[in-house]
Amino acid sequence: MTEEATFRPKARAVRGFQDWRADALAAETLIVSAVSGVYESFGFERLETPAFEYADALGKFLPDAERPNAGVFALQDDDEQWIALRYDLTAPLARFAAENWARLPKPFRRYAFGPVWRDEKPGPGRYRQFIQCDADTVGSARPEADAEIIAMAVAGYRAAGLADAAFTVKINNRKLLSGLLSARGVADDAQRVAALRAMDKLDRLGVRGVADLLGLGRLDESGAFTQGAQLPAAAIDGVLAFIEAGKRTRNDTLASVANVVGGSAEVAAGLEELARIGAALDGLGVTEGQASFDPSVVRGLEYYTGAVFEAELTHQSLDDAGPRFGSVGGGGRYDGLVARFTGEAIPATGFSFGVSRLAAALAADGGAELARPRGPVVVIAFSQERMADYFAAAAELRAGGIAAEVYLGESGMRAQMKYADRRGSPAAVILGDEELAAGTVTIKDLDLGRALADKVADNQAWRADRPGQVTAPRAELTATVRRVVDAST
Amino acid sequence: MTEEATFRPKARAVRGFQDWRADALAAETLIVSAVSGVYESFGFERLETPAFEYADALGKFLPDAERPNAGVFALQDDDEQWIALRYDLTAPLARFAAENWARLPKPFRRYAFGPVWRDEKPGPGRYRQFIQCDADTVGSARPEADAEIIAMAVAGYRAAGLADAAFTVKINNRKLLSGLLSARGVADDAQRVAALRAMDKLDRLGVRGVADLLGLGRLDESGAFTQGAQLPAAAIDGVLAFIEAGKRTRNDTLASVANVVGGSAEVAAGLEELARIGAALDGLGVTEGQASFDPSVVRGLEYYTGAVFEAELTHQSLDDAGPRFGSVGGGGRYDGLVARFTGEAIPATGFSFGVSRLAAALAADGGAELARPRGPVVVIAFSQERMADYFAAAAELRAGGIAAEVYLGESGMRAQMKYADRRGSPAAVILGDEELAAGTVTIKDLDLGRALADKVADNQAWRADRPGQVTAPRAELTATVRRVVDAST
Repeated sequence: MTEEATFRPKARAVRGFQDWRADALAAETLIVSAVSGVYESFGFERLETPAFEYADALGKFLPDAERPNAGVFALQDDDEQWIALRYDLTAPLARFAAENWARLPKPFRRYAFGPVWRDEKPGPGRYRQFIQCDADTVGSARPEADAEIIAMAVAGYRAAGLADAAFTVKINNRKLLSGLLSARGVADDAQRVAALRAMDKLDRLGVRGVADLLGLGRLDESGAFTQGAQLPAAAIDGVLAFIEAGKRTRNDTLASVANVVGGSAEVAAGLEELARIGAALDGLGVTEGQASFDPSVVRGLEYYTGAVFEAELTHQSLDDAGPRFGSVGGGGRYDGLVARFTGEAIPATGFSFGVSRLAAALAADGGAELARPRGPVVVIAFSQERMADYFAAAAELRAGGIAAEVYLGESGMRAQMKYADRRGSPAAVILGDEELAAGTVTIKDLDLGRALADKVADNQAWRADRPGQVTAPRAELTATVRRVVDAST
Repeated sequence: MTEEATFRPKARAVRGFQDWRADALAAETLIVSAVSGVYESFGFERLETPAFEYADALGKFLPDAERPNAGVFALQDDDEQWIALRYDLTAPLARFAAENWARLPKPFRRYAFGPVWRDEKPGPGRYRQFIQCDADTVGSARPEADAEIIAMAVAGYRAAGLADAAFTVKINNRKLLSGLLSARGVADDAQRVAALRAMDKLDRLGVRGVADLLGLGRLDESGAFTQGAQLPAAAIDGVLAFIEAGKRTRNDTLASVANVVGGSAEVAAGLEELARIGAALDGLGVTEGQASFDPSVVRGLEYYTGAVFEAELTHQSLDDAGPRFGSVGGGGRYDGLVARFTGEAIPATGFSFGVSRLAAALAADGGAELARPRGPVVVIAFSQERMADYFAAAAELRAGGIAAEVYLGESGMRAQMKYADRRGSPAAVILGDEELAAGTVTIKDLDLGRALADKVADNQAWRADRPGQVTAPRAELTATVRRVVDAST
């Protein structure tokens, strides 16, 4: 035997990646399908770009991506060019729109779903591959396009099964902070990015922590020091007043923000955009509870140029030590991303559902609507000689619309029943010598068996109209199984 | 401006990758959904493994993969381990099964679909990312499990819309060739692999070319020499007799093959497996036309140990220069793949649909069943002041189950109608000053407009019951649009 033949690799998923079995996939599939349906109803067409993009096309917009290709999975193609797996669905869309702009209907409205990859430090509930489901309008500068994207997000969370009280979309505009910083003498790009990063930590560090990070820096409990944005005191005061300017209604927040951000042209543009978004949200029937203006919203990605959106679960885990899901999607306006390629300014706005995060949240929440996928009806295999009979029975059930399989292992009856139970099968079909000789078939009701085993059923009541096992003429196989399956759901 | 800000990357998809728009995706989505439905009806449960695996877990089973990581996209993780994108869905399943064997129901029946990646030289119709849709049974050595996989493949191609005459599944068993070579003194692994590779070129090179490659080698038209498998003459004669031993029926082929492969234990096992597969196919109602025994079938991947399957389109492109699709799926038994990890022999068999290839074939074939996806109804936007009215109309249509959008560009009526036309919209909704004042709405039938423009409609007949444009009370918006949309399909 060669060395290669005796080498035994360890069977394990790559660090930070996970396998999804049918029950976990059910939630994701439901979300993607519900959200895609909403996007299509708003007239968005599907697009699928490949997993790889040229690294220069992806750009460096990830938070904390200081090293070349930091945060992305990148490799050198055999023509020496660097290619990288997409870290979101927006950068590939910008590349596609720039490449095909002349032939696209304008505005170009597309939705997309699929995995994205980030080469980050994995942690609990934090994976390096996850699913996003996006819709974007490319080629419209209208704030109404932003408002429509927000309305779709709201409709999408509802379609995915969230109650209105369970989520909210928070809206801000990057032009407000930018105008505020300019007015207070902060023009350096690095300082402005550092200010955004500081604001983004409000949830975790509170106002005091953000203030430190806007200034000289922050010493955490462990004694580690984080360099601050070095803003002048007046700018820090302005930013803090801004992020605390949120009020109960969109109009009140607009008025409150206008008071603290000063009066530059950039600020005026930001306020005007938000005002038009607010009016359109009213027209679209989006309530204050579902979409609010919140000056503390930042979004981590650097490419946003105007409105930004963040969807959050309002539900707090009862157990404080338990998982908290927070952001389950977001987006915003990125008027410069297509122009990176072409130089031509093409405004764009979009939203991304954090499908994996939302699925985890729904599952943790009891997953009320997410019934465990049912297993197939299992036809018990007794002898090699009668396999054709078993296959015929399974085929009949399938033709009747009932998922069914013949047991294909080598174990006996008892193990086969246990197999059917582990698969979540509603019923087992028995074609033993006796049944075959008599032209009958025996059907075991496995849900009843499970209920009895769990002692949750009232034995008397169940047994009256649902005997655990019934023998019927072979010709009545499908009808009999259907009765058992229907009673199980 | 910094250097980064003025750098303009070229907007282009990575070499060998493509973008799929809605019409192309429609075929793939239909195939995946139809085939998944078949798999579920046979009791297979869905599994999704991540895109990456440790490179050692994937193994080196790709054809012509002599360099380390040749044929796969691989990179070094930050802990120095090599990880690679999956090149198929089978190797990740083997890893998953080995990792979770103790907790899985046995046999473990799973299906999966998604992209796979191969770092190959791209060519016309040959991409480096494509979709597969697989089903596998892990933990059953029974030939009936192979037969069931074949029956599912046949049901899958039918569900995807192929006529019975358009495809066939060819079946062989690696044990026959292996036994034949052993009996004729060929024991060297490299020689055996070279013999497989030579047989795999039968379609392209014919029997004479295969004979050369089994022997000393072959000189092609360009003068390039390919080294041969160096088999002894008796072995070459045996292989050639074997690959030409196919007959019209499964039973006749079995008898014919038995005559040429000699009588070793390995050959007897291969013949017995095929005989049981044939009997089970009969039981499953799979005809000779849909599944035949064909000793010339090889399959490129090295991990197969027993039965191998290859699905081919029987349809030949009328134009000889046109595309030929050939193989649109395949699979086989790989009893050693899980044992690579654990040492414990766990038999397995499966089938993989070449979804992208099949979609291309269906599209080239006229794509009869694949209607072009329809665009949304477009509500024309005349003035900023009345946006709320337009949004309300679109929302009403959506609530009535009709996809609808408000035009969000900045162009005038004429460009908006052109936009609606390019989107494939069935109708445009006009709420001009006149309509708004009168409490009415005008609906333009765009399919009719297209038909007239194409001069394919009988103008008189169409105009009688389908005027190109109708003005209705505003309250009848949804009902009126529905009549137009229904007439369009």
